[in-house]
Amino acid sequence: MQLQPNIIFIVEIIGTIAFASSGAMVAVRKRLDLFGIIVLGVITAVGGGMLRDLMIGNIPPNMFRNPVYVLAAFLTVLVLFLLFRCWPFLLGSRYIEGYEKIMNILDAIGLGAFTVIGIDTGVEAGYGDYHFLIIFLGVITGIGGGILRDIMAGETPYVLKKHIYACASIAGACLYVVLLQVTRSDSAMIGSALLVVAIRILASHFRWDLPGIDMD
Amino acid sequence: MQLQPNIIFIVEIIGTIAFASSGAMVAVRKRLDLFGIIVLGVITAVGGGMLRDLMIGNIPPNMFRNPVYVLAAFLTVLVLFLLFRCWPFLLGSRYIEGYEKIMNILDAIGLGAFTVIGIDTGVEAGYGDYHFLIIFLGVITGIGGGILRDIMAGETPYVLKKHIYACASIAGACLYVVLLQVTRSDSAMIGSALLVVAIRILASHFRWDLPGIDMD
Amino acid sequence: MQLQPNIIFIVEIIGTIAFASSGAMVAVRKRLDLFGIIVLGVITAVGGGMLRDLMIGNIPPNMFRNPVYVLAAFLTVLVLFLLFRCWPFLLGSRYIEGYEKIMNILDAIGLGAFTVIGIDTGVEAGYGDYHFLIIFLGVITGIGGGILRDIMAGETPYVLKKHIYACASIAGACLYVVLLQVTRSDSAMIGSALLVVAIRILASHFRWDLPGIDMD
Repeated sequence: MQLQPNIIFIVEIIGTIAFASSGAMVAVRKRLDLFGIIVLGVITAVGGGMLRDLMIGNIPPNMFRNPVYVLAAFLTVLVLFLLFRCWPFLLGSRYIEGYEKIMNILDAIGLGAFTVIGIDTGVEAGYGDYHFLIIFLGVITGIGGGILRDIMAGETPYVLKKHIYACASIAGACLYVVLLQVTRSDSAMIGSALLVVAIRILASHFRWDLPGIDMD
Repeated sequence: MQLQPNIIFIVEIIGTIAFASSGAMVAVRKRLDLFGIIVLGVITAVGGGMLRDLMIGNIPPNMFRNPVYVLAAFLTVLVLFLLFRCWPFLLGSRYIEGYEKIMNILDAIGLGAFTVIGIDTGVEAGYGDYHFLIIFLGVITGIGGGILRDIMAGETPYVLKKHIYACASIAGACLYVVLLQVTRSDSAMIGSALLVVAIRILASHFRWDLPGIDMD
Repeated sequence: MQLQPNIIFIVEIIGTIAFASSGAMVAVRKRLDLFGIIVLGVITAVGGGMLRDLMIGNIPPNMFRNPVYVLAAFLTVLVLFLLFRCWPFLLGSRYIEGYEKIMNILDAIGLGAFTVIGIDTGVEAGYGDYHFLIIFLGVITGIGGGILRDIMAGETPYVLKKHIYACASIAGACLYVVLLQVTRSDSAMIGSALLVVAIRILASHFRWDLPGIDMD
């Protein structure tokens, strides 16, 4: 089975849109102005890949060599801004709930896609034998943008606090690296990405949480 | 017209002093001790150039190869510290207002100079055809230090919240990149830097703001 | 005198454990879950070296080429998590005070070791003549992990606020760079590391503080 590059690209753009939307929503809630909304939206969408590229010396980072992802994130944020600017009541309405449910699923798809793409980037850069490194590259591609978003917004990163968002990415990354030892095929890539999506959505639905420490 | 390197250097030092001063003032208001004041002052002054150099693999970053900027920032901070330590009443007096007005203008000059210098650095590193990248390099050189300052001080970055500080830098960067397609001359550089200064000062004077979203 | 590589390695592991513990304690106090505790613990332990490697283009950073430090940090955090999860009363007991006193000393040892190792890394990468750079590399190796920990935890970095933690590292780094002009020997390394440890412990014991500015 040979995966069409087109399909990978479409999935990447879906993830970019979902991530940009999550960044824009954080910015709107922090009452940032248009520039802040754009920056948080774009950095959420492409920040993870930028951190990955810095770690392995992919200079300049891919977001600059191939600005289509930045553009997609920018347009997403602009549309959201115009929507909420013209009809601010949308933010408080029942529509927003439906919107966030859809975005939650697209976000999961993005997390899965970015995780396996991050690993592929590491393998192509010649680090296929550094298993810990490429797992890290996959996970940072998936969750790095959200971490940058939260640091810039002055909040404790979401992935440190809630649910098993990052664990979904880690599980898929580990599966993909194990599968890569056997075969470098599209089915390995798709299967691993789907594992991320499945864990992410199930965790969100059943409100899975990691154990913490009860200090009281 | 051939711009003297001396003039560029003097403008850079002016910007360095103004940026270091803004970092030191944030640190003083956060009641940090001498070390914190030095770190925030220096990082505000040279942090933007450091981020730029990391993005394009200028290793080690220019701040280390040419420590005169770090030294200028350090001395600025030290003088401010001694002033406010010996005469703390200065911080509450009417002098501080005049001081901040002057620094506001020097800061605008620094923003303009750093923006065009950041673009020149990208062009010299061979990325002249990556227009999005070099605009980003110019802007990050201009505003990156302030972002690092605010993240380290635990505040939402100023550029995300207020006025059109960053937009001034973006406008000048875009103008300079457009002009560079036609001519690589000092007048292009100066004109673009002056555009930044003008927007920055006018925005500050007339309290221009970008639109936000009214959630109430 | 020829220092056994084993001894350096043991000291590094001691520092890694102490730094990971400090990261985990911050995470526990912020009520982060298991993932957050692991991330803050690991990033505190290896984040300084990662920043150092990025600055000088050591790609990929050493933490990925030699994951034993990440593993040591991970195990430390896991043991702490299980301890506090099973016996949460430990966190409020008199045991925790004794534990933190011991960790304070190990942390000082780690700070000393990481500072001189950071400088050695810079010298080995060919930057021995960039004195400001290698001092910075030593200090960032020592305190960078703690800065990343505090930024991710949403707090003003500890080193900016308190005591002369960073100054101990700076003093030792300067001494080591001066000594390196004369001799590249293990005694220079050990002496400089011990200076860091001594200042760090004395400052902590006598509550030395840097001067600040009294705004009231």
